[in-house]
Amino acid sequence: MELQRTIMTIAGSDSSGGAGIQADLRTFAALGHYGTSVITALTAQNTTGVQGVHGVPPSFLEQQIHSVLDDLDVHAIKTGMLFDAENTRATVRALKKYYSGRAMPPLVCDPVCVSTSGHSLLAPEALENCSYLARFLQFKTCLMLPGDLLRCGPRGVLVKGGHMTATIADVDSLARAHPEICIMRDGLYGDDMEILSVNTPEPTSLVIDVLCEADGPTTLFVRPRIDSTSTHGTGCTLSAALACALADGASVSEAATAAAAFTHLGIRTATKLGAGHGPLNHLHSVTQRLVPPRTPTNPYPLTQLLIKGSAGIWREYVEHPFVQRLGEGTLPKDSFVRFITQDYHYLKYYARAYGQVPSFFSSTSTDVCCSLLAAKSDTFPAIASATQTILNVLREISMHRAFCAEFGVSAAELEQTREAAATSAYGGYLIDVGMQGDTTKLLVALLACLLGYGEVGLWLKRAFGSAAGPERSRRNVVLEGHPYRRWIEDYSGKEYQYAVRAGLETIEACAAADPPSAARLAEWRAVWERCTRLEKALWDMALEVQD
Amino acid sequence: MELQRTIMTIAGSDSSGGAGIQADLRTFAALGHYGTSVITALTAQNTTGVQGVHGVPPSFLEQQIHSVLDDLDVHAIKTGMLFDAENTRATVRALKKYYSGRAMPPLVCDPVCVSTSGHSLLAPEALENCSYLARFLQFKTCLMLPGDLLRCGPRGVLVKGGHMTATIADVDSLARAHPEICIMRDGLYGDDMEILSVNTPEPTSLVIDVLCEADGPTTLFVRPRIDSTSTHGTGCTLSAALACALADGASVSEAATAAAAFTHLGIRTATKLGAGHGPLNHLHSVTQRLVPPRTPTNPYPLTQLLIKGSAGIWREYVEHPFVQRLGEGTLPKDSFVRFITQDYHYLKYYARAYGQVPSFFSSTSTDVCCSLLAAKSDTFPAIASATQTILNVLREISMHRAFCAEFGVSAAELEQTREAAATSAYGGYLIDVGMQGDTTKLLVALLACLLGYGEVGLWLKRAFGSAAGPERSRRNVVLEGHPYRRWIEDYSGKEYQYAVRAGLETIEACAAADPPSAARLAEWRAVWERCTRLEKALWDMALEVQD
Repeated sequence: MELQRTIMTIAGSDSSGGAGIQADLRTFAALGHYGTSVITALTAQNTTGVQGVHGVPPSFLEQQIHSVLDDLDVHAIKTGMLFDAENTRATVRALKKYYSGRAMPPLVCDPVCVSTSGHSLLAPEALENCSYLARFLQFKTCLMLPGDLLRCGPRGVLVKGGHMTATIADVDSLARAHPEICIMRDGLYGDDMEILSVNTPEPTSLVIDVLCEADGPTTLFVRPRIDSTSTHGTGCTLSAALACALADGASVSEAATAAAAFTHLGIRTATKLGAGHGPLNHLHSVTQRLVPPRTPTNPYPLTQLLIKGSAGIWREYVEHPFVQRLGEGTLPKDSFVRFITQDYHYLKYYARAYGQVPSFFSSTSTDVCCSLLAAKSDTFPAIASATQTILNVLREISMHRAFCAEFGVSAAELEQTREAAATSAYGGYLIDVGMQGDTTKLLVALLACLLGYGEVGLWLKRAFGSAAGPERSRRNVVLEGHPYRRWIEDYSGKEYQYAVRAGLETIEACAAADPPSAARLAEWRAVWERCTRLEKALWDMALEVQD
Repeated sequence: MELQRTIMTIAGSDSSGGAGIQADLRTFAALGHYGTSVITALTAQNTTGVQGVHGVPPSFLEQQIHSVLDDLDVHAIKTGMLFDAENTRATVRALKKYYSGRAMPPLVCDPVCVSTSGHSLLAPEALENCSYLARFLQFKTCLMLPGDLLRCGPRGVLVKGGHMTATIADVDSLARAHPEICIMRDGLYGDDMEILSVNTPEPTSLVIDVLCEADGPTTLFVRPRIDSTSTHGTGCTLSAALACALADGASVSEAATAAAAFTHLGIRTATKLGAGHGPLNHLHSVTQRLVPPRTPTNPYPLTQLLIKGSAGIWREYVEHPFVQRLGEGTLPKDSFVRFITQDYHYLKYYARAYGQVPSFFSSTSTDVCCSLLAAKSDTFPAIASATQTILNVLREISMHRAFCAEFGVSAAELEQTREAAATSAYGGYLIDVGMQGDTTKLLVALLACLLGYGEVGLWLKRAFGSAAGPERSRRNVVLEGHPYRRWIEDYSGKEYQYAVRAGLETIEACAAADPPSAARLAEWRAVWERCTRLEKALWDMALEVQD
């Protein structure tokens, strides 16, 4: 996830992490934004209560605001607990100083007075300074109060309804009495979604947040009440999520809708923590990214994961005794012929499976790979590379025919050789994956063969060739007189290696454009491991002729 | 993402958010852990430097530690900037007091002395107190220094090498001279991955972190140096990631490997922020979760997203004039017959597409849906529900035959009716999706039909039936004498509605077990919207007979 916008919170610190700047920063991160935090006061608190408060000197509070604003481009600001009248004034002073003569980004004020655990977090004189908040709001107050607040100048006032309870009947009668009020039923289905509501229990108790806009209607956000103790930092989370949506350019009403839904899910998905009112789960909106991003020095992160995940089998495959003996030139001719004839049959399946990659070159807009190919400016090289892979299979087949002729097996004999069980098992599996899954899954299945032969080619050339020429480097390795010289040179050669790169590029681009969930990655790993085993089994089979 | 473990950081606050507890908390969140934070000092800083520091009184620092530990079960602790000797002693005192007589979780000490911007963050007397850190470390110092530190008692000492540079030749010669040193090359490929290294540029400059373990070898973590100014908070991030891995139960060496890789990617994926040394991108390890989690009051979040995403077309489909007239009983008989005969043909495709859901009931362990069905204890009801959906198609077909007979169309005529273009277009699309994508994509394609007819059935029964019986509720609606009564009762009836629920359950379970990436969700949305349009087109076609 790349961080989108910078947001500044001016609030208290909660040592237990559930509220204050800690809840704000977690909310910003969960919604993809970068958080900066100006601390007004420290609290020593936990889920059972507030054990101590340490105010920050007003001048240092101002200094923090200047440090942030002097360097970073802030797209939204939220204020939480301002602690006392002096710090409230210091905040106003610093913001006024910075924004005099320039546009201020959206500002969300959360007038934190009392913690969820009941602790007063605003000094009495500050409360007077704000002079408007009743400690326990009643339903009617919520509808009347915002009007008074709106006169202070904000674009909107959102009154959180967590401390009140209403029923669907209350909402329906309110809607009848006040047709001008807009009612948003989140998690309650509209009249074109009756089919979804049939099997969903109707909530008996509702929470209603009230939004009044200076230039808009009054909106009620109605949602099912959750019976939970994980409500520590609900207000902080709501106002932080509001700031995120406003930074994204949402309207006040859109922001309230998004923020209320985010907070609701935070309470709903929380697991109990601590002995009292525990924190929300802010991270319900993200999942782990399992394949790391591609970087210049690690351009093949998925392939690395796959290889490392089955390192033992991969090594048994690419450093198989068959390969070792082939390199040494001690592999019996019979084993090689058996391998080549079976590989010839295998390549039929392989080419057919490649043909199955269904809309790899088509213009179907819904195909991921294809969308990627079409959307990126460098798509033609990608298409060309993929084509090269298919052509490579045909080239391999002609090489196999030549080998067989060289070793006294005619084209007719080659065609008529009965398939070994190892060949049928592997070939059938490729076709099955092609029928069953999507493009990426099939590409993973095709990768073990493509990559493994590339690795084997490079290794054999380096290990069993001898450096020649004035430079005696890896590039000048020759295999003079080696009985399997052509086979090694083919798989270590330019054309095959180019096809490998094209295949790697395609699959890594797919994984980067469509990052897999844990379930999907597990599926790919299983496919990769199975194909690696099936590759090893092909060489076991070829050696068994002899051993 | 559900939060796994609780971790406590004891460190300074960085107003600009890139280092200190802010970097720690972001790291904990990015790695799936819940962070608590004890603040030792506040800094007013940004990417260009530190403008001010405000120390927290030692007694209040201790109070914060007690508030956290008295309530929450902490699985790892890290200390960062401790500010001065007094606060260092207060930290030790508070931890000793709490953990005397009980096991202490893993503790990571990051002896922060100097910020990336060059500001000394530890008072001189505290530096003496720690008495061991040179301001600029040389390569040899890194190898010798940890030995001295190990004598203080930790399980391991990790010396960060960000301020030194080495080449591959340096590392190779070191490896030859000290075969006992373990060398981990992250982002540099092993000898069984030559195929990946061929096309990756060899880094000219390396960063080396050195780990010495009390009961283990010395390990060098070698990775390519990144030329970047996004290094503000690198040390905080590394030590926070170490704490996460140790909380997860990793060994010291595993933790160092994971933490170094996490930090490296944080620098690599960062976008420049601020005028000086900007922050890392800690969130490279997560992606947005686009389908919200299922909750008791919103059990169908994917389906809601799909419907809301194409709200206009969905409404045109389920409230189509054809449906309206059918409900009113004013639909011409010809239109109804045309619809029923075409729907009969469509249902052949539909049943065939259902048959394509490839390993829906098979035992292939790699199939997501199937894994889900097999892994959950309540799998038999899910299998039964899916079977019911298939049986429902067969029941629908027999209903269509009965309707046709009633309206004077024989079974042979029904079978021989030529397919309309709208029918072929829709049916062909279902088969195409079945060939092309995976199970979930096909289930999305099948959902528009399943769900829409359920919605239409419920709506028609409610809108055009009349309540009867003593209770006059929705449940007692009757359609006495309605010409299309049986059609409405079938789609609003128990069996069909049960099949709808089974279909919803299956697709929502798939999406929850395998959360889609943005690309995959976009694909599902496109499939859903296309099917909704194709459904509408079927009814357009039926009405055109008349209009």
